Amino acid sequence: MVKANSFDGSSTSCSSTDNSKDSSRCSTPVLDVERHERLRDKMHRRIEAGDKWFSLEFFPPRTASGAVNLISRFDRMGSGGPLFIDVTWHPAGDPGSDKETSSMTIASTAVDFCGLETLLHMTCCTQTKEEITRHLHKAKRNGLKNIMALRGDPVGEEWEEEAEGFNYAIDLVKHIRHEFDDYFDICVAGYPKGHPEAESYEADLQHLKEKVDAGADFIITQLFFRSENFLQFLKDCRAIGITCPILPGIFPIQGYGSLRQLVKLSKLEVPQEIKDVIEPIKDNDAAIRNYGIDLAVSMCRELLDSGLVHGLHFYTLNREVATIDVLRRLGLWQEDPRRPMPWAVSAHPKRREEDVRPIFWASRPKSYIHRTQEWDDFPNGRWGNSSSPAFGELTDYYLFFLKSKSPRDQLLKMWGEELSCEKSVFEIFTCYITGNPNPNGHKVTCLPWNDDPLAQETGLLKDQLERVNKRGVLTINSQPNVNGKPSTDPIVGWGPSRGYVFQKAYLEFFASSEMVTALIKVLKRYEPRVNYHIVNVQGENITNSTDMQPNAVTWGIFPGREIIQPTVVDPVSFMYWKDEAFALWIEQWAKLYEEESPSRMIIQYIHDNYFLVNLVDNDFPLENCLWQVIEDTFVEFDNPSEQ
Amino acid sequence: MVKANSFDGSSTSCSSTDNSKDSSRCSTPVLDVERHERLRDKMHRRIEAGDKWFSLEFFPPRTASGAVNLISRFDRMGSGGPLFIDVTWHPAGDPGSDKETSSMTIASTAVDFCGLETLLHMTCCTQTKEEITRHLHKAKRNGLKNIMALRGDPVGEEWEEEAEGFNYAIDLVKHIRHEFDDYFDICVAGYPKGHPEAESYEADLQHLKEKVDAGADFIITQLFFRSENFLQFLKDCRAIGITCPILPGIFPIQGYGSLRQLVKLSKLEVPQEIKDVIEPIKDNDAAIRNYGIDLAVSMCRELLDSGLVHGLHFYTLNREVATIDVLRRLGLWQEDPRRPMPWAVSAHPKRREEDVRPIFWASRPKSYIHRTQEWDDFPNGRWGNSSSPAFGELTDYYLFFLKSKSPRDQLLKMWGEELSCEKSVFEIFTCYITGNPNPNGHKVTCLPWNDDPLAQETGLLKDQLERVNKRGVLTINSQPNVNGKPSTDPIVGWGPSRGYVFQKAYLEFFASSEMVTALIKVLKRYEPRVNYHIVNVQGENITNSTDMQPNAVTWGIFPGREIIQPTVVDPVSFMYWKDEAFALWIEQWAKLYEEESPSRMIIQYIHDNYFLVNLVDNDFPLENCLWQVIEDTFVEFDNPSEQ
Repeated sequence: MVKANSFDGSSTSCSSTDNSKDSSRCSTPVLDVERHERLRDKMHRRIEAGDKWFSLEFFPPRTASGAVNLISRFDRMGSGGPLFIDVTWHPAGDPGSDKETSSMTIASTAVDFCGLETLLHMTCCTQTKEEITRHLHKAKRNGLKNIMALRGDPVGEEWEEEAEGFNYAIDLVKHIRHEFDDYFDICVAGYPKGHPEAESYEADLQHLKEKVDAGADFIITQLFFRSENFLQFLKDCRAIGITCPILPGIFPIQGYGSLRQLVKLSKLEVPQEIKDVIEPIKDNDAAIRNYGIDLAVSMCRELLDSGLVHGLHFYTLNREVATIDVLRRLGLWQEDPRRPMPWAVSAHPKRREEDVRPIFWASRPKSYIHRTQEWDDFPNGRWGNSSSPAFGELTDYYLFFLKSKSPRDQLLKMWGEELSCEKSVFEIFTCYITGNPNPNGHKVTCLPWNDDPLAQETGLLKDQLERVNKRGVLTINSQPNVNGKPSTDPIVGWGPSRGYVFQKAYLEFFASSEMVTALIKVLKRYEPRVNYHIVNVQGENITNSTDMQPNAVTWGIFPGREIIQPTVVDPVSFMYWKDEAFALWIEQWAKLYEEESPSRMIIQYIHDNYFLVNLVDNDFPLENCLWQVIEDTFVEFDNPSEQ
Repeated sequence: MVKANSFDGSSTSCSSTDNSKDSSRCSTPVLDVERHERLRDKMHRRIEAGDKWFSLEFFPPRTASGAVNLISRFDRMGSGGPLFIDVTWHPAGDPGSDKETSSMTIASTAVDFCGLETLLHMTCCTQTKEEITRHLHKAKRNGLKNIMALRGDPVGEEWEEEAEGFNYAIDLVKHIRHEFDDYFDICVAGYPKGHPEAESYEADLQHLKEKVDAGADFIITQLFFRSENFLQFLKDCRAIGITCPILPGIFPIQGYGSLRQLVKLSKLEVPQEIKDVIEPIKDNDAAIRNYGIDLAVSMCRELLDSGLVHGLHFYTLNREVATIDVLRRLGLWQEDPRRPMPWAVSAHPKRREEDVRPIFWASRPKSYIHRTQEWDDFPNGRWGNSSSPAFGELTDYYLFFLKSKSPRDQLLKMWGEELSCEKSVFEIFTCYITGNPNPNGHKVTCLPWNDDPLAQETGLLKDQLERVNKRGVLTINSQPNVNGKPSTDPIVGWGPSRGYVFQKAYLEFFASSEMVTALIKVLKRYEPRVNYHIVNVQGENITNSTDMQPNAVTWGIFPGREIIQPTVVDPVSFMYWKDEAFALWIEQWAKLYEEESPSRMIIQYIHDNYFLVNLVDNDFPLENCLWQVIEDTFVEFDNPSEQ
């Protein structure tokens, strides 16, 4: 890491004046170098370091519920550490629209809400220059930085070249570079067997060279069935001077039907040795998939072993099992990915410097991203720059993929077909914590306040959480105190290695006003160790926080960096969060029941009368005192003391 | 601290919308509430809390060296915790000029460089409205926020009222409020025995009431000799509706001459019982001072015991001993003042939010303040906002009070009348650390890089520092690692109580290029635990820091606050610091010797050939490894290993 060494003759000096003028040096802590790099630079850095990578291709879904599923799949497959994903362009489906199922919407969601580096396909042959420019502007606005420039297959009728139009992918590459300069990273397609419409394999290679010379940054190939096809193609590309990264497109055979369809579209021949295996087992899906996985693994191994291939691109067909299996067997799937931040980062360029969020949305990161998407100032947002804009309207936040996490009947099974009293609700919360089935025998796998499954660190608090939920302290967010664990700790770690992470104990819950009356008496005995904010749906607010300042509750110390404090208890945003937290009682739970039904009225009663409470124990080096606060509250509740 | 309690009927609610719109809530951590308050609010808060305070009056010096001494006195007396100091207006001495000895310069220096809340006297009777306005604008620009509005004594000739002019203090009060609205806090003078020129005591009280009604915020009285004089005056003021704070002016008698002079000026009578004591001992300064101290203490006790007096204002006559003695005996002198930051804060309003500095200037805080005085953006300065301006020119930084810390002959005694070799220099550094006399029997109480005496925490490293300086690792800055000590720790603590402070071990030194060659070999074994920057006077720079990011080396965690990281190792400002650090060899040390003399050439050689090194041990929870790095370097230096 030595930047300059003036002692062995190879010195580079670094004059003070030059450095000081470099205003881009900036100071925001870079947690993850890749978070700040463009895709082509990431590839080059990995190639230089000898690190292998993989990427995943998806197509846009047909239905809204398909879109919800696909976004969940992004989250799951994103955790394995793809360098990027790509989303194909569906010419028939209004790909650039705002519809939930459009390529543009899906790709933007992957970037902004799933934190994935994303490559959006774009075809040109059936669209006007103006339409394409509009799409590109929209992609840029949505945070997309990578375009796969394709000609696209003319749909339906016979296709004719247009003199003024975009007839080939190279026209699109030139147009992007002309209109957007170096903003986008551009990918183009390569054909290991030559494009079916090309005059010859050699002529097709020349076309590819021209696309790269016109400004493409890397190449993804069409699928192929033998590693030698790709390696020959790679050799031929290098021979004519194509030097950019070339990613082999890997197609794990997952079924007889999908293979036939793809072969038809791509006009590829399936080699006889593969046909010989598949034909006899064509009705046995599992057998075909297993064969496809074995085949893909051995082909990938050959490619990687050649030393010439650094990244593998997978055609997933929007399925998980086969691709993950291949990646696991290749050792490329990250089983325990390092978290750059304690929360799920976004890959939107304007959030590149984001390094602090309020803790309240810890289990609803997509809602937080959505409600702050109009902010033009990250990382600080409201913190450190009081002129930042406020949160998005609550009515806006029902993103399509947050709207319905499960069908109504499944939610009723989890949260109770019929509630008889507040205690029924306590029981649901308790089952969510313990993992035990509810009285009707169903597991409670989520609550309205939790998009994501229970955080691993919550497990550290399980016994105490169970105890307090049973008594009506309905917890929706918590973290244990941490006094300097290594940043690589599998449960509470985050950020670069060789750092130390810290947390203040945090507990957030709903409780009845009677319980809160007892709590407030007890809290006076814990001044000033415990900071609290207590608020009801009307906004009545009780707090001991000074000057409405944020309280840092998670921070990290890293070699050669400024301190990073990624989560805070911010009194101002708590007021926005409480609106959302109370609304979820009604929108996601009460509305499952008939109007005027007892069950609905119980939830409505809680919504109207309970308080939302957050507690921070500032003495992070000592044993967490918040459980004692709650125990004392129960005692006070059962036997009120004299005021 | 509960802001609103909705349960006992006394509720105040706090709606989310209102809060969110309050952009002034800001987020910068307020370390010391008083740092952000105006003087009158500080007084009112202390009165409400029942806390007593004191303030100190000084007059501008006659000579430049007197000014240097006075600034040092500000630092020493500031450490006792005065609520404010004031500087009188010296009508004969061009008080508003930029001269080192002017009232304006002295008061501005107290604010900006000594961090003292300062009240500047201003008289009006011999000046035009334009002159006065110009003075006030200048005071505002210089960070002064408090004006003592006085008529002033006409000098020399007979004084006549001018129809258009400022004839009384009240005219000045009105003018300030008219031209500067509420910007300044205004103080006016009160006369416990009535102004000598007033028609009567009652008429004078009425004049005082008018001055307060015109906009004065508090009153300081003329000196008096009996507590009952003041208490009667206070009662009379309250009776006619003067409600603002009234501070008694305390004059500890310090000598026969000064008493006589003051009595003459103020036209006060010295009570017979005092005369009776003093006359017989008038030639015994010590006896008079002791009597004066006793007298002041008993008078102050009577005032404080009355319950009506909250603050005492001392006429120091620019002397320390008597006033400090009185304050110590009253228990008002802070023996162990809490530090709001690890470094000496400035009281300039634009530095109110300043909460981070590079560690390099730790022993030269005034130079740092001076070199960054053109910045318009604090707290961040260069950190967090890369558009901030750069450091002031090195040539600018020789402030009058930094120019010559001691006369040349004293410096020669400390640093050596004659140097025979580099080792002589090592010896001087070592004596500075140990406190032992140098070979000629003189103590080394400062070095060119240290304005302030050795920091207390440096004592924790004394043995190691001695060892390494002896061998030519010439240390100029260091701090031990600290892993979460209470913020009230007497040695390393700072900031509000109930917090935890942390430090990474830091070491900065000059060393020969041969030593640095050995060091660089050794440092490779400490990657990436130790961050280093190594630079020579030409700016050749060797570092393992990534992206030129600052490394936080001191930080604190406090209840209900964001993390505060007041010191960083910032690679960019290190390049500015090294220019200053190398220049000090020449400007402060080499120039003590004749040109071409061997002593001068030795210092010049060090300047030209040594490197400035800083090391940070990032593993603050472990034992500081920097001493081992240096020991290993000595081994490598003595027996170079194969590369």
